Amino acid sequence: MQTLSLNDKNYIIDSIRNISNYPKPGIEFKDITTLLGNPDVFHFLLDHLTSRYESYGLDYIAGIESRGFIFGAALAARLRTRFVPIRKPGKLPYTTISEKYSLEYGVDEVEIHIDAFSHGIKDPKVLLIDDLIATGGTANASVNLINKTGSKCIEVCFIINLVSLRGDEEIKEHTPVYSVLETR
Amino acid sequence: MQTLSLNDKNYIIDSIRNISNYPKPGIEFKDITTLLGNPDVFHFLLDHLTSRYESYGLDYIAGIESRGFIFGAALAARLRTRFVPIRKPGKLPYTTISEKYSLEYGVDEVEIHIDAFSHGIKDPKVLLIDDLIATGGTANASVNLINKTGSKCIEVCFIINLVSLRGDEEIKEHTPVYSVLETR
Repeated sequence: MQTLSLNDKNYIIDSIRNISNYPKPGIEFKDITTLLGNPDVFHFLLDHLTSRYESYGLDYIAGIESRGFIFGAALAARLRTRFVPIRKPGKLPYTTISEKYSLEYGVDEVEIHIDAFSHGIKDPKVLLIDDLIATGGTANASVNLINKTGSKCIEVCFIINLVSLRGDEEIKEHTPVYSVLETR
Repeated sequence: MQTLSLNDKNYIIDSIRNISNYPKPGIEFKDITTLLGNPDVFHFLLDHLTSRYESYGLDYIAGIESRGFIFGAALAARLRTRFVPIRKPGKLPYTTISEKYSLEYGVDEVEIHIDAFSHGIKDPKVLLIDDLIATGGTANASVNLINKTGSKCIEVCFIINLVSLRGDEEIKEHTPVYSVLETR
């Protein structure tokens, strides 16, 4: 199950609900709550990710707030690894470092605890995970944040990649990207 | 491991970082990111929760945004059950129902998808999970929300209960509460 067939991918895709015109007109939102509500599909997906990543020797799984917490913590539970939350500004209680990124209009920011990877591990291996990549700003900033701490993001994993937006291109210049599903 | 000894509890407590005067003066914040960063403790805790809940025949684990997502999804991964997110207003893309609750100053609200428990299960069993209970407003509103859908919250689980605030008293009038750790 390290590689998914087209049938496997369609099995997962069929569990995801499309919501038209959310959060704004013209956008078709991918609602993963219906995937999480289908235990066969949810755990088929987790089995696949577990099988893919168990040979990587991961030291950390980092998840991006909030849906990245769901898939990241679930995978950490399976692989018995650490989980590191990457959050919106002002949500983490200890000293943080932050990384800004551009939005269509304006700027946003992600934060991580400055000691998130301070466990005395030489060249720690970090997997970054989020549910979906659209334009990729948050994920690219999150990779930069991980690498800023002196740790190393060895791969970024998305459940869904909206390929027509090419959000993974900037990330791929410095870090491997794995998308379970590719859709428009 | 269904019951934790005092030593076991102290082992978990010692992994949680106390942050003084966060988010405001006089509050000692429980920072669970250090627990998540200690794989031995994190998975010891998950093993305990798995052992406690595997006999419950849970149909759903519901987690409260955002730290409840981490523990809830991790436990769902272990028990191979469904995961349902309970979120702040405006974050869920499909039709929602909501429940208001009082804060020290003002009112807040939690939301759930109206079809979160619509899988044709007779008398579905839902476990609600969050990292910490303080005054209990969010958790109590979340239990009400689950029960409003016609489903049944059979227990609420917290990793940490700040017992001096007695936040669990109102919940206990209608629903069992299990707290892994009790602290002031």
